[in-house]
Amino acid sequence: MEGSHGETGKALRGKAKQLYATDDPEILWVEYKNTATAGDGEKKEDFTGKGRLNNLITTIIFDLLKKRGIDSHLVKRVNATGQLVRKVNMFPLEIVLRNVAAGHFCSRLGVEEGLPLKEPVLEYFLKNDDLHDPFVNDDDLVALGVCTREDLAEIAPLARKINEALIEIFAKIDVKLVDFKIEMGRASDGTLLLADEITPDSCRLWDQRDHSGKVEHLDKDLFRRGLGSIIPAYEEIEERLAELAKSEGIEVAE
Amino acid sequence: MEGSHGETGKALRGKAKQLYATDDPEILWVEYKNTATAGDGEKKEDFTGKGRLNNLITTIIFDLLKKRGIDSHLVKRVNATGQLVRKVNMFPLEIVLRNVAAGHFCSRLGVEEGLPLKEPVLEYFLKNDDLHDPFVNDDDLVALGVCTREDLAEIAPLARKINEALIEIFAKIDVKLVDFKIEMGRASDGTLLLADEITPDSCRLWDQRDHSGKVEHLDKDLFRRGLGSIIPAYEEIEERLAELAKSEGIEVAE
Repeated sequence: MEGSHGETGKALRGKAKQLYATDDPEILWVEYKNTATAGDGEKKEDFTGKGRLNNLITTIIFDLLKKRGIDSHLVKRVNATGQLVRKVNMFPLEIVLRNVAAGHFCSRLGVEEGLPLKEPVLEYFLKNDDLHDPFVNDDDLVALGVCTREDLAEIAPLARKINEALIEIFAKIDVKLVDFKIEMGRASDGTLLLADEITPDSCRLWDQRDHSGKVEHLDKDLFRRGLGSIIPAYEEIEERLAELAKSEGIEVAE
Repeated sequence: MEGSHGETGKALRGKAKQLYATDDPEILWVEYKNTATAGDGEKKEDFTGKGRLNNLITTIIFDLLKKRGIDSHLVKRVNATGQLVRKVNMFPLEIVLRNVAAGHFCSRLGVEEGLPLKEPVLEYFLKNDDLHDPFVNDDDLVALGVCTREDLAEIAPLARKINEALIEIFAKIDVKLVDFKIEMGRASDGTLLLADEITPDSCRLWDQRDHSGKVEHLDKDLFRRGLGSIIPAYEEIEERLAELAKSEGIEVAE
């Protein structure tokens, strides 16, 4: 549901990011915007600082993942709100991983938010605004020609591996990774790459530092549910991740 | 969405069938009703003769499948609207197989009805009236504890095998099997069995005898879409199937 990029290098406007071509046909410029959207784009608001924070957060997370053997499209962060990424041929998929029941999973299946899932749940949603990003299964995707069985046999294990790594990363900063959405694409050499972003826009992050048992959202649910500004929460995530990254010898922008 | 039976032997009312205990705790009596329902039960009408026809059709199809090595819960048809079946512990699943795009698949995914699918599509829907039988994937089912990976590793191949057999059976009577819904359960010895029914209530069947290119529905879409009485179509399916069964040496009730 967040901005993503297609097959061409021309500028593409997303809800929370914008993409631009560069002189190098293999490289795109991603500009992180201050806009937050929710409810299929019906709710929309600008938060000063959000673009800067999400650019920092995605960069740190992609660097932490790289250290764990998981490559992404990220080339480098270039300024407060911009980063350079490898152009990849995106699968039109929202790839969702769930460790704890929340959001759409709960309303769809009638379970309580917070229910721990027996195993991580991988779900695909077809990116299509007109159809409101419908939930699809493997057979649907193959039948529609969106991807092949061979694509899915690469996408699913990579998604699960990213989940394992992110659970570990967020646990280290006392945050429970409830669920998240990623996107993937193939680079020009065919390599499957994690792309798009990993930020509190695309993850549900519950603080595990003492809040007397109450769920403290450090993610876009603050905006979706009208619980207050997202900025202090995004700052908190950025600060904790930056500290972790530094402790692992990763260079982090101030 | 059609009637199904649960874990106990007591009478259970379905929309199109009713189940009764018998003296044998391993055997249930299924009574086929004349009621047709559609749209989550909102549309409802009685068609004289439907119960008798569906009892005949299910019996013939289960017998044709048995000849092709696929067992079902059917013990035997006992009178016009009744049959005896093995009591099985049902999975609360609507198991849907699609060969051609139609119905929910089209509205959900924005494709034209009649589009041939590259490969047969297997979909699961959780039987839950309150939630309107939500679409689920394998991970959802395992996470919710509805079934195990081992169950799914048996259910999916059996469902695909049934589809192959039904495509062949219906092709022999000049009918295209567009899609269908089945249910499965485990007998007391653990055997996974096809259960419930296979009728024009649970299948989309398009006549392939000359209709000048127009789709001629021989199934419940006649009722769902207000295209006329279902009875002549159900009679047509019963007659063609009976002829096929006799040609294969299967005894068929008159």
